[in-house]
Amino acid sequence: TVSLAEKLKSGSPVVTGWSMLAVPILAELMGRGGYEAVTVDFQHGAHDIASAREALAAMVLAGTYRLARIPVGDNATASRLLDLGAQAVIAPMINSVEEAKAFAAATKYPPLGERSWGPHRAAMLDGLPLEAYLEKANRETVSLAMIETPQAVAALDAILAVPGIDGVFVGPSDLSLTLSAGADMDRDGEKTTQAIRTIADHARAAGKIAGIFCMSPEKVMEARDAGYTLMAYGADMGLFHAAASTARKACTV
Amino acid sequence: TVSLAEKLKSGSPVVTGWSMLAVPILAELMGRGGYEAVTVDFQHGAHDIASAREALAAMVLAGTYRLARIPVGDNATASRLLDLGAQAVIAPMINSVEEAKAFAAATKYPPLGERSWGPHRAAMLDGLPLEAYLEKANRETVSLAMIETPQAVAALDAILAVPGIDGVFVGPSDLSLTLSAGADMDRDGEKTTQAIRTIADHARAAGKIAGIFCMSPEKVMEARDAGYTLMAYGADMGLFHAAASTARKACTV
Amino acid sequence: TVSLAEKLKSGSPVVTGWSMLAVPILAELMGRGGYEAVTVDFQHGAHDIASAREALAAMVLAGTYRLARIPVGDNATASRLLDLGAQAVIAPMINSVEEAKAFAAATKYPPLGERSWGPHRAAMLDGLPLEAYLEKANRETVSLAMIETPQAVAALDAILAVPGIDGVFVGPSDLSLTLSAGADMDRDGEKTTQAIRTIADHARAAGKIAGIFCMSPEKVMEARDAGYTLMAYGADMGLFHAAASTARKACTV
Amino acid sequence: TVSLAEKLKSGSPVVTGWSMLAVPILAELMGRGGYEAVTVDFQHGAHDIASAREALAAMVLAGTYRLARIPVGDNATASRLLDLGAQAVIAPMINSVEEAKAFAAATKYPPLGERSWGPHRAAMLDGLPLEAYLEKANRETVSLAMIETPQAVAALDAILAVPGIDGVFVGPSDLSLTLSAGADMDRDGEKTTQAIRTIADHARAAGKIAGIFCMSPEKVMEARDAGYTLMAYGADMGLFHAAASTARKACTV
Amino acid sequence: TVSLAEKLKSGSPVVTGWSMLAVPILAELMGRGGYEAVTVDFQHGAHDIASAREALAAMVLAGTYRLARIPVGDNATASRLLDLGAQAVIAPMINSVEEAKAFAAATKYPPLGERSWGPHRAAMLDGLPLEAYLEKANRETVSLAMIETPQAVAALDAILAVPGIDGVFVGPSDLSLTLSAGADMDRDGEKTTQAIRTIADHARAAGKIAGIFCMSPEKVMEARDAGYTLMAYGADMGLFHAAASTARKACTV
Amino acid sequence: TVSLAEKLKSGSPVVTGWSMLAVPILAELMGRGGYEAVTVDFQHGAHDIASAREALAAMVLAGTYRLARIPVGDNATASRLLDLGAQAVIAPMINSVEEAKAFAAATKYPPLGERSWGPHRAAMLDGLPLEAYLEKANRETVSLAMIETPQAVAALDAILAVPGIDGVFVGPSDLSLTLSAGADMDRDGEKTTQAIRTIADHARAAGKIAGIFCMSPEKVMEARDAGYTLMAYGADMGLFHAAASTARKACTV
Ligand SMILES: [Mg+2]
Ligand SMILES: [Mg+2]
Ligand SMILES: [Mg+2]
Ligand SMILES: [Mg+2]
Ligand SMILES: [Mg+2]
Ligand SMILES: [Mg+2]
Repeated sequence: TVSLAEKLKSGSPVVTGWSMLAVPILAELMGRGGYEAVTVDFQHGAHDIASAREALAAMVLAGTYRLARIPVGDNATASRLLDLGAQAVIAPMINSVEEAKAFAAATKYPPLGERSWGPHRAAMLDGLPLEAYLEKANRETVSLAMIETPQAVAALDAILAVPGIDGVFVGPSDLSLTLSAGADMDRDGEKTTQAIRTIADHARAAGKIAGIFCMSPEKVMEARDAGYTLMAYGADMGLFHAAASTARKACTV
Repeated sequence: TVSLAEKLKSGSPVVTGWSMLAVPILAELMGRGGYEAVTVDFQHGAHDIASAREALAAMVLAGTYRLARIPVGDNATASRLLDLGAQAVIAPMINSVEEAKAFAAATKYPPLGERSWGPHRAAMLDGLPLEAYLEKANRETVSLAMIETPQAVAALDAILAVPGIDGVFVGPSDLSLTLSAGADMDRDGEKTTQAIRTIADHARAAGKIAGIFCMSPEKVMEARDAGYTLMAYGADMGLFHAAASTARKACTV
Repeated sequence: TVSLAEKLKSGSPVVTGWSMLAVPILAELMGRGGYEAVTVDFQHGAHDIASAREALAAMVLAGTYRLARIPVGDNATASRLLDLGAQAVIAPMINSVEEAKAFAAATKYPPLGERSWGPHRAAMLDGLPLEAYLEKANRETVSLAMIETPQAVAALDAILAVPGIDGVFVGPSDLSLTLSAGADMDRDGEKTTQAIRTIADHARAAGKIAGIFCMSPEKVMEARDAGYTLMAYGADMGLFHAAASTARKACTV
Repeated sequence: TVSLAEKLKSGSPVVTGWSMLAVPILAELMGRGGYEAVTVDFQHGAHDIASAREALAAMVLAGTYRLARIPVGDNATASRLLDLGAQAVIAPMINSVEEAKAFAAATKYPPLGERSWGPHRAAMLDGLPLEAYLEKANRETVSLAMIETPQAVAALDAILAVPGIDGVFVGPSDLSLTLSAGADMDRDGEKTTQAIRTIADHARAAGKIAGIFCMSPEKVMEARDAGYTLMAYGADMGLFHAAASTARKACTV
Repeated sequence: TVSLAEKLKSGSPVVTGWSMLAVPILAELMGRGGYEAVTVDFQHGAHDIASAREALAAMVLAGTYRLARIPVGDNATASRLLDLGAQAVIAPMINSVEEAKAFAAATKYPPLGERSWGPHRAAMLDGLPLEAYLEKANRETVSLAMIETPQAVAALDAILAVPGIDGVFVGPSDLSLTLSAGADMDRDGEKTTQAIRTIADHARAAGKIAGIFCMSPEKVMEARDAGYTLMAYGADMGLFHAAASTARKACTV
Repeated sequence: TVSLAEKLKSGSPVVTGWSMLAVPILAELMGRGGYEAVTVDFQHGAHDIASAREALAAMVLAGTYRLARIPVGDNATASRLLDLGAQAVIAPMINSVEEAKAFAAATKYPPLGERSWGPHRAAMLDGLPLEAYLEKANRETVSLAMIETPQAVAALDAILAVPGIDGVFVGPSDLSLTLSAGADMDRDGEKTTQAIRTIADHARAAGKIAGIFCMSPEKVMEARDAGYTLMAYGADMGLFHAAASTARKACTV
């Protein structure tokens, strides 16, 4: 089977569901419903180590790729999530080369980084001996830096050039908010749209992965056309709320 | 505000979501999505006392009516769920007057039944002093006997006549399975359809509530037309699985 | 150290706190606060096997005796709670000799009863080899039948005579409710007061333990004077609610 | 892949680990460690619906067969465990044909029994549509009655003849305790040994499965030789306690 | 209804209970017992994201204001708690303008700070659309810097002047410990008392909120008189331990 | 009883089990199995605050010393674990004096460090009044800096000289990985072996504690001979996996 890293680097599209409610069975059901990947969200979602541990195992059960997003600056948790079986980690608010380096240090083993040894659960979920895990880890573990501020856009090429950073991931909400200095949340505005295109172009030019959070299936397709290979769409809270609303409304009594 | 008992007896329709995954936030989201009632399912769902306790509180937060279904014959749990705040309890596989009486005994205080005293959490969720809870309990607590076998249909009028039984609730899957002696699951077959109509008619004639589990919004409307006032539609597991599938499919990449 | 059975039979008073919220640390804090015993309540409290397992261990940490009350008629849970370390089990609504016998069967090993073998956790909490646990179990495990209806009072002597029943436990709320046929909850009424005295007298005459749920410290003392040795007073939910109310009110701002 | 029922009926040996601590990861680790089956124990173990739900999924992850033991007489839980994905259920203390019939009724669909419809999670874990689950359920779901008293031994052939009972399972501890009327726990005594042989012979003669709890690997082999195909050996609590003890002792400091 | 920010800024007193045990029902009971606010404590309490998520929802159920204290320097958790519904966050050990700025950055949206977008649960608990949440967030979200060292006192005016810092919160235990260089814990000593007065005066002069942890109702009143508007009194662990002790002692048997 | 600090400083050996699975009962069972200490691992194990809180209490029940390892750089969690009852904290990847000082600041009260006041649970587990806890805390709380990189080895003496650092703890896996610049994991290689000896020698010379993670009982004895007093051996995941494997293999059917 193809690793997530290979798949993303080869240009094949990956759509990931978004696990916010910290409920492992929902991560599993996203996989069973057709998602090829699920992301546990520690930044704006309610996940903690316990729910992430179970959700990552549930993804193995469902046969999906396993991603996780950490809270701002919490690189120690990036290491922990890899140890628990995440195949990719997304770090929010990477605004400088220094922040990108610190993130890469936590997610890659020496000599590339400083990740500390202890991936027993991850190797078990992969069905690999520890040596095999070590051999493949730096190659197959995906570290994605979020680009979601003007500072980050300005530093984009330098961030993309950091060894151990495998790609970038765009947060359109924060990007539109910071590009307008907090004035409005206009994800479809010209500045944001332009930045989103630029980011994909530069990532591709650098031979790295481009990912993005999408608010609709249309945006997923748009992003794909723009050169993104990793598209997030569908958070469990929103999906279920909408499904419940639709179901009740369909009963016109 | 109108109690669930009053509402159902007055003939107003109530559509209840179905909580199977034992995840309280999903019960809350069904309420926020528009459901006026949610049922925690201990029979075929994964609920236990801990998840039910939290789900019942989550329903108060969402402003929905609170129902629960017990495992077959587990009347002690019926009492416990009322103590934890359920406003109605559904008992599966009530096939005889004796079973109906035992169920009513567990859900109604003397002299109607033998429910034991201890509704501290329920009264708290209602914002009532204990005396006020006691005064209203037998009147407002709804006990529903499931009619889902030929024996139950045969005993229908006698079951409806049991003091403390407030109504019946139809399980079309088991009904079609038992009416065909296990031959097939034909919820729309003639026998099942006829039984479903008969049950509503007799319940209405007895001045009692008729409820039913529905497999689609169309079935909800059909049941309503047949005289049912309580219609269950939308289990969390199915709703979410379908929503995830639809979301992923909408992303044509 | 003296076993709970010995202590109760010797006539020494034991006051037990009441764990309803299914929160193990509160059981521990009752012990640390001075209670010599705590009861986990599966009937009107929110406990389940998981919370009981932890609460029983927390009681060992706090050095208290360990009791549990089961739901009505749930003798299988009585066996389970003993296996998890309970030293006494209280069964509600024992209204007949048959019910008393079934309860004793579940809590005593052969030849006295039919309890099935598997007390590994209980023996571990006691620091005993399994053989030593078996040798002492029937002698030191306390089975208490609740007397809380007129039928139970009528059958009192016969219930007390059942081998394996170590004593009775009075539920004044249900007793007053059933003695008045549901008319009112008058725990201090004449009928209830008289029944409470009678029960202690007969238990003492039969050489068995008399226990009772008390609504105030005064009632504890009254019960003690009447011949009871096990008095329950102080449920976690009520204690904490009152403590919070008192604390806030003391801040007159 | 061969179903558990087929495997057991074909005479192939199955050794099951025993999950008592209600810790799903330990069930998974038993599977990863080589066990081809794991049993979640609700009778003497600490499991409840929540831990069982997770442990059964963990077994799918580890690729093992999935069994469960219910508390005494708790047939409603037998149905629930099948709905959550158990492939076999073991019922303790089946001492009469009536008890065997009630157990079979709860575990087999009509016309064989009265199991109620709702196996959504089980079918999902099997990767089957609901119809396919229904078609195979009565054939592949294994119902095992525990023979562990003289009454049960006396009724053995009649119990084995109950439609829907797929086999028997011996509890040597209770058997030795009850055969000696509580006098001693002599699992290797003559009476117990003889009964164990008789049970296997009669089960085989009736074309049904014979299972047994074993206290050592030697007993597993002995049971196998006596005709048993399902042997339980290795409870998580005991295995871990012994492993910790051995590990510490090996460090002679 | 008045927001917490408005209330505190208007000079109305708010007394907050303190949730340390990480038990959501206790937070709810503090609200039901009369507290108008509850604080979940991640620094010295046992809370984590899971318990905080439930406790914040329980506070909505009880109708109280919702506060949280983060561990030292853990600003990522400040953002997370706001996303989960906290209306105010208290940061311990803010000893410099730099630390105050970093804290404000994590709790305020641009242009005031750098809080990242994702308040879906908070908006849901408020019953607000996301746009409305964004519009009010910086105005109604309260960021309180703890002043509990000599360095902090020295930097007080500068900390109070940091945009996005809505006020200060005094920790008298640490303040007395650090003012005496670890020599003793004398919360009523002259130095500490004087500092406590100075802090309120300066906060008031700066038009910002002054809050403080109090060891008794008397201290609450004293603080109120000194100009504080937010007073914490009553930790769940201490309240329950004292309540249990008082209850047992009242039973003089 | 002798404190962990005293014992380690006196030169008595302490072997600690390693709790990775975040399952409190396994920590307890390690103690009951003979371990005199257990370490909860937040770095490579699955622990979080909730599981650590319960595991630390379980260790008191089992009578073992209580240690914890934090994630890289997460000093706020070091403080929290001490508040919850840890007697020693191990900090990974301490590569400089600055990092050592920041760690010591978080674990020692003034004037030695900046630990904030709030050890209510720890004092309760110790059975001590808060004043007594404060008096002993800096003396009896053990802060161990992990030496596991060439930079750390180079800074060893300076790290050992940091006030508040009670000793060092070697991670041989990371040490061998970093000494070889990621080339291989050769824990028995010459460079690693030499470094391990050097570290013990320098720690002893500085009058401080030397601890180390060991991969086998032989390594424990070797470390002891080299001058180490704290040896970690036996992680719950590995112990159980091996025990399950051995148990199943012993059944040759
Ligand atoms: Mg963002
Ligand atoms: Mg049904
Ligand atoms: Mg009662
Ligand atoms: Mg048995
Ligand atoms: Mg402080
Ligand atoms: Mg290391």
